[in-house]
Amino acid sequence: FPFRLKVNGWGQLRHTASDVALPNTDLNQFQMKRARLILSGNAFLPDLTYFTQFDGRSSSGDDMRLLDFYLSYDIGHSQFGFEKGTFGFRAGKYKMPFTMARWLSGKEFEFSDRSVASTYFDVNRSLAVGLFGESKHTAIPIEWETAIFNGFVTGGAETGSSGNLDDNFAYSIRLQGYPIGDWGDSQLADFESHDRLAMRVGCAFAGTTISRNGSTEFNTPRVVDSGQTFASILPLAVDSYHVSQFALDASLKWRGWSSTMEYYFRNLSDFEGAGIPSLLDHGFWFQLGYFVVPEKLQVLTRWSRVDGDSGTLGASDQSTDEVGAGLAWYLRGNRAKIVTDVTRLDGAPINSSALDVNPGDRGWLFRTQMQFSF
Amino acid sequence: FPFRLKVNGWGQLRHTASDVALPNTDLNQFQMKRARLILSGNAFLPDLTYFTQFDGRSSSGDDMRLLDFYLSYDIGHSQFGFEKGTFGFRAGKYKMPFTMARWLSGKEFEFSDRSVASTYFDVNRSLAVGLFGESKHTAIPIEWETAIFNGFVTGGAETGSSGNLDDNFAYSIRLQGYPIGDWGDSQLADFESHDRLAMRVGCAFAGTTISRNGSTEFNTPRVVDSGQTFASILPLAVDSYHVSQFALDASLKWRGWSSTMEYYFRNLSDFEGAGIPSLLDHGFWFQLGYFVVPEKLQVLTRWSRVDGDSGTLGASDQSTDEVGAGLAWYLRGNRAKIVTDVTRLDGAPINSSALDVNPGDRGWLFRTQMQFSF
Amino acid sequence: FPFRLKVNGWGQLRHTASDVALPNTDLNQFQMKRARLILSGNAFLPDLTYFTQFDGRSSSGDDMRLLDFYLSYDIGHSQFGFEKGTFGFRAGKYKMPFTMARWLSGKEFEFSDRSVASTYFDVNRSLAVGLFGESKHTAIPIEWETAIFNGFVTGGAETGSSGNLDDNFAYSIRLQGYPIGDWGDSQLADFESHDRLAMRVGCAFAGTTISRNGSTEFNTPRVVDSGQTFASILPLAVDSYHVSQFALDASLKWRGWSSTMEYYFRNLSDFEGAGIPSLLDHGFWFQLGYFVVPEKLQVLTRWSRVDGDSGTLGASDQSTDEVGAGLAWYLRGNRAKIVTDVTRLDGAPINSSALDVNPGDRGWLFRTQMQFSF
Repeated sequence: FPFRLKVNGWGQLRHTASDVALPNTDLNQFQMKRARLILSGNAFLPDLTYFTQFDGRSSSGDDMRLLDFYLSYDIGHSQFGFEKGTFGFRAGKYKMPFTMARWLSGKEFEFSDRSVASTYFDVNRSLAVGLFGESKHTAIPIEWETAIFNGFVTGGAETGSSGNLDDNFAYSIRLQGYPIGDWGDSQLADFESHDRLAMRVGCAFAGTTISRNGSTEFNTPRVVDSGQTFASILPLAVDSYHVSQFALDASLKWRGWSSTMEYYFRNLSDFEGAGIPSLLDHGFWFQLGYFVVPEKLQVLTRWSRVDGDSGTLGASDQSTDEVGAGLAWYLRGNRAKIVTDVTRLDGAPINSSALDVNPGDRGWLFRTQMQFSF
Repeated sequence: FPFRLKVNGWGQLRHTASDVALPNTDLNQFQMKRARLILSGNAFLPDLTYFTQFDGRSSSGDDMRLLDFYLSYDIGHSQFGFEKGTFGFRAGKYKMPFTMARWLSGKEFEFSDRSVASTYFDVNRSLAVGLFGESKHTAIPIEWETAIFNGFVTGGAETGSSGNLDDNFAYSIRLQGYPIGDWGDSQLADFESHDRLAMRVGCAFAGTTISRNGSTEFNTPRVVDSGQTFASILPLAVDSYHVSQFALDASLKWRGWSSTMEYYFRNLSDFEGAGIPSLLDHGFWFQLGYFVVPEKLQVLTRWSRVDGDSGTLGASDQSTDEVGAGLAWYLRGNRAKIVTDVTRLDGAPINSSALDVNPGDRGWLFRTQMQFSF
Repeated sequence: FPFRLKVNGWGQLRHTASDVALPNTDLNQFQMKRARLILSGNAFLPDLTYFTQFDGRSSSGDDMRLLDFYLSYDIGHSQFGFEKGTFGFRAGKYKMPFTMARWLSGKEFEFSDRSVASTYFDVNRSLAVGLFGESKHTAIPIEWETAIFNGFVTGGAETGSSGNLDDNFAYSIRLQGYPIGDWGDSQLADFESHDRLAMRVGCAFAGTTISRNGSTEFNTPRVVDSGQTFASILPLAVDSYHVSQFALDASLKWRGWSSTMEYYFRNLSDFEGAGIPSLLDHGFWFQLGYFVVPEKLQVLTRWSRVDGDSGTLGASDQSTDEVGAGLAWYLRGNRAKIVTDVTRLDGAPINSSALDVNPGDRGWLFRTQMQFSF
């Protein structure tokens, strides 16, 4: 019978303490960072799968949110007898294909959470239709996905006339390949203790036009290094502008070492209503982990940086850095683990409740996180 | 063992584009119109059933809502040995018995969504206690349901002292019969390709008194044809008034044809505090579908109209029309289908995020919707 | 296989009518007081259990909330081979160990809901880490639990920098023993028709420092007998103060009789910024139930009182009382029951949507509640 339902859940309980310069305020509290419930399976056909994910994150009160709700149809396998996953269609609400950092499940992070840079350049979820596929038997195994969607970071936004989205769609594409070695199941950490080097590389593009009348989208982009919204420094005469974002990433696993680097570019251009030059921000995160005790205890370090002229409307470049170090203790791989990390911020350009980082944060951030799944 | 739990889900992903006259704004976006998760079953006794339905509609952000949560007890079968469904009791939050359009599940629509007229006269969900029953073996099989509840369109409202409901209950009743032929499972479309005509008819009543101190209920009714709230044009001296609504409906199925008509009346009267005459609005929706390819491809057309003197406090009649046409392609009946329709609006009298229709909308509405269930 | 998932649900549909003195307003409505869905089980190990509870209470609209989400690990059994429950660790969002009234499940109440006094001194849920245990084979069987958490009544609050919690933790402990007889499964009512007296006693402590910059916590405490927030009468110069709360309780069951008494103390002290003396409030609830028809029909009576000098900043004592009587009809024990009760209020010192009681309420409250579970 072609119906199947799987119930899963996982959570992250975090203690966050921060010591940041005024006027920003310190935190010392427990938080439920992710409280996920997942219903997935297939319906009617083995090639028609659904995925539903709820979240009860405590940094947005105790309301449950519908994080993901999408349908995938494996056209290649169902209609043409191709191998599974070769070519499919997806529709619903899900993570847009763009950065590797967002593509990663929160369960697979080595640190407690994503980096500042990957949050700055994030596209996150949206309502979308898209295509995806992979080729396993080519010289370099490749996966790809593309989507057309409502806009950058519009996943939790109200749609319809009561919402505030502009009427421009966004589009994105991501390609990912495995040029060297057998990558294994783990997305980041080298649980497999690779004897031979394994490598994953990716590249991606996302673009959209943002109009002032879609205030949700218009107020999302921020600038380096103040972390103010771009909308707040833009002349009122500007009605719309174009955003193009690029991402390049490479990850390695070798003998307990795991190294990941992702580089981002954001180009703001075609300002309607005022003479503003093209603005370019760029940044990266670089992360290094090593299993001191194989599969159990990992030491971590990370550097993330955002640099660009968006905060001065092109007059000069500004930059901000994040450096961190941590320890991860895996009781049952990524299904039960404890991570503790410390981060030094030098004026954060983001406003992220997930990261516990506010615009302009300068100082220290201490996070300890328990993760478990069922 | 007398416990049973069934898990179901279904969703509608819609693309909406609109082209309406100023000052209303155009839409072009993907929306998750319905993202439902249903837990149902029985507990303790085969005749004691529960129904729980969650929704994650994206036009109200990404919060999950508890749409339905009720208990039904089949008194007739359990206590008197009658046939199942003969006579029962229901309590909780659910769709109040009134219009046929609301009684229909969203899965069974032929068009993407309900008509403007059925939204204008809608009573929707509430917290209620009620009775229901049916008689299958009479000359004309009949179903009926009645309820006493908090008020019209109060299903999503806050209750308790923090909410804003008045202290008047509402009450309603609906009767439905099948005078000709064997209706079949499908609520609207003629999936059964009836050789002989099948007919369903219904009638209903709903009434309540609305007081100014219950601002949720007081601000719900709207007037034809501006779509303003009735509260906004009512003299401040009016403290309360009475609403009586009537509905009559008839549906046919024959050789792939499906025809549905529902007529509504709304009488506003007994205004306390100012001399306002009784106001009468009336309207209808009429829908015609035909399977060009049996069970697969259906062509659709619809006309809905609201007419009345509420918008002028009795001075004169005004009216507004909605006409639409569409195509429905059923992959697996109502469990997997794609609908595309176009609607011409002539000044809408409603504010509906479900329909993507705003007060005063004049122009075109294009909707394309994928529906699937598991 | 060490994975297990259990799905449960239960609900309370209540009719509330109140007749209170102006300026407070009367209610007459149906409410969904508790609409719970529970997913629980264990993962990886028999001693690692999870508990997830959702709520769709209609007095906060129709949004679903994540009420509980926690993990318990039975360290004693898993690591040291002790009997199950001897010693464990818990982390997540759950009810803090403090009053017996809060420790009780809402399913086990004899009246429709908790008393005014137990709401006044409530600590409720929070995000926490804690320890728990029991000793079954001592002369007096004992259970205990302790926790460190974000603050009093912070369970539904936003955390992170967008929230408004201060950076002081709270801590609490509760001890419970069974000095006489075999208590049985039911938490309050004497379903077991004890031939010999059974007794349960408990004591508890909770403490924290509350700072003005954590506005969520700062605005929670209320004063007797006006029910105003303590924050509203406190001089603006006060930046923080300390709260210590104590609770003592004793419950009896004997031949269909059930008697419960819990006494509370709240000491506010160490006011920073202004010379305010220590303030002491105290209060109790006392409840008596008797099964007129064993296991089926129970008559109930309750008295709850809050007394203290918080409302006058130490100048004089004020007090307020609640007296109530009711009838409980158990169809299937606490899994299906109907309760009706009437309460006389004499100026309520709380603001509780669960109880339908507002600050200053003087008058009558009539509640009738259906409860069922699956």
